[in-house]
Amino acid sequence: MNKIFIHEVGMRDGLQVEQQIVPTQTKINWIKELMETGVDIIQVGSFVHPVKVPTMADTDELFKYFSKPENKKSNTILAGLVLNEKGLERGMEAGVEMFCMGVSASETHSKKNTGMTTDEALERIIPMAKNAKAAGKEVQVSVQSAFGCSFEGEIPRERVFNIVEKYLQNGILNISLADTAGHANPIQVEDIIASIYSMNPDAKLSCHFHDTYGLGIANCFMAFKHGVKYFESAFAGLGGCPFTAKASGNVCTEDLVNMFNRFDLRKDIDLKKIVGIAKKAEALFGRELPGKILKVGLLEY
Amino acid sequence: MNKIFIHEVGMRDGLQVEQQIVPTQTKINWIKELMETGVDIIQVGSFVHPVKVPTMADTDELFKYFSKPENKKSNTILAGLVLNEKGLERGMEAGVEMFCMGVSASETHSKKNTGMTTDEALERIIPMAKNAKAAGKEVQVSVQSAFGCSFEGEIPRERVFNIVEKYLQNGILNISLADTAGHANPIQVEDIIASIYSMNPDAKLSCHFHDTYGLGIANCFMAFKHGVKYFESAFAGLGGCPFTAKASGNVCTEDLVNMFNRFDLRKDIDLKKIVGIAKKAEALFGRELPGKILKVGLLEY
Repeated sequence: MNKIFIHEVGMRDGLQVEQQIVPTQTKINWIKELMETGVDIIQVGSFVHPVKVPTMADTDELFKYFSKPENKKSNTILAGLVLNEKGLERGMEAGVEMFCMGVSASETHSKKNTGMTTDEALERIIPMAKNAKAAGKEVQVSVQSAFGCSFEGEIPRERVFNIVEKYLQNGILNISLADTAGHANPIQVEDIIASIYSMNPDAKLSCHFHDTYGLGIANCFMAFKHGVKYFESAFAGLGGCPFTAKASGNVCTEDLVNMFNRFDLRKDIDLKKIVGIAKKAEALFGRELPGKILKVGLLEY
Repeated sequence: MNKIFIHEVGMRDGLQVEQQIVPTQTKINWIKELMETGVDIIQVGSFVHPVKVPTMADTDELFKYFSKPENKKSNTILAGLVLNEKGLERGMEAGVEMFCMGVSASETHSKKNTGMTTDEALERIIPMAKNAKAAGKEVQVSVQSAFGCSFEGEIPRERVFNIVEKYLQNGILNISLADTAGHANPIQVEDIIASIYSMNPDAKLSCHFHDTYGLGIANCFMAFKHGVKYFESAFAGLGGCPFTAKASGNVCTEDLVNMFNRFDLRKDIDLKKIVGIAKKAEALFGRELPGKILKVGLLEY
């Protein structure tokens, strides 16, 4: 089996939904520790309006800090999420290494999030992605609500394939399928992943599942079985709404890596260190977070 | 796809490890409500020494209660776990409809649990199973620690296959593979299930996973994909040690059935009612239990 890659999204998808703002210095410490764990990509933050999303207000500052060689000693790729041209501009200036951007396969979700239809959003995102690539940056485009939508329910697979096709036609192979609402199920994952690889076997697919209904790891496993190599997950399983707390977060990084460890994959990742960061997050937020290994310890043999 | 069957083990595997003893009348109420949900088998309790396991002291009484036709209005099968001949005798007298019994694939686990080696335990269990069958009872035999052991770590698959073979040779096809420690991973599940079906395609396999490391549902899914039709799970995800609480329970019934619902299977089971019982268990034990749907509500569309 080939190597798989862990894209740690806790600092962005995890922290952004928290009520409590994590101090910039704490974020710096956690990012440094995450770099030491051996995860491949760390999503540092998103370039959104600081008034609208105060938890992400220090994203520029964080990237600028890690742009200094003395502050970044590893090869970990630091990624940033951008929603529009303004964000892209800020990200370029701040030193983002990998840009993440995307559109939603759900019209309702797209409209609510961006004020645009999916097609309108695509017309805006594709040139942004091309510009970032032309500037020598890594770029990952996403299909949000790819497996279902909390507003619309079922999302016809053709909507997902149409977006993926447009990305591929524009030479953007690095595509993330995001299960924003956590509706994905493993049979659907098999179907969608296999169909996309049959469209283009060179697609570099990433999966981003939420564990809302407890199917996150099963979905990752089926994606893995069908050839997906990139997985987005959050330490401690962060990312749920703090009020329904334990259930709706991202797939938990340390639990996911523990599964891959059982297949003799990614034993180089320091799970103890990830659990250490997860425990600091629990202490800071003052509540139990959903990760399993966080509670029962590592399975080592 | 064929029908799958839910064997609800919360009343036994869930309640037995709790510090708090659930009053018999509460157990009766919960069992009645579980019968109304449409699950296929309910494991009511185990016939162990009442002093050793006080949470199970009323098992005889519960079976006697439900043996009266006026107290049992559904076709749900009521199962009881027996560990030895004395337990079998008690179960026969109390009116058990389906007997569950088994041996551990781990020598250390077997010795600690029964004082016998795996082979010695098998020599005792097989005649018990035959006697119960001869008495017209349904019988399910199990392989405990089939996927790993918290004392021994890895359990060679041959140890599992040897036990299964002995069961099959003795005409006992109804075999449960129990992941007592929660060490199973989906690739291992594929391997073991496929191997057993190649030994005997008529084996009537049941899977009993614990969610210690978050792989419970992924394991169920792979077992399902490879033809397993019987699943043992506990409402609310009960079954963890109350001290490491949320992580180590059984696979959660309502979360598992929710997954099957996504495949249009078992939509006849009343998930709202199961969640209702799960909420009563949370109230009684005064702590949050691990089930996901319990927190976020049903996914309906």
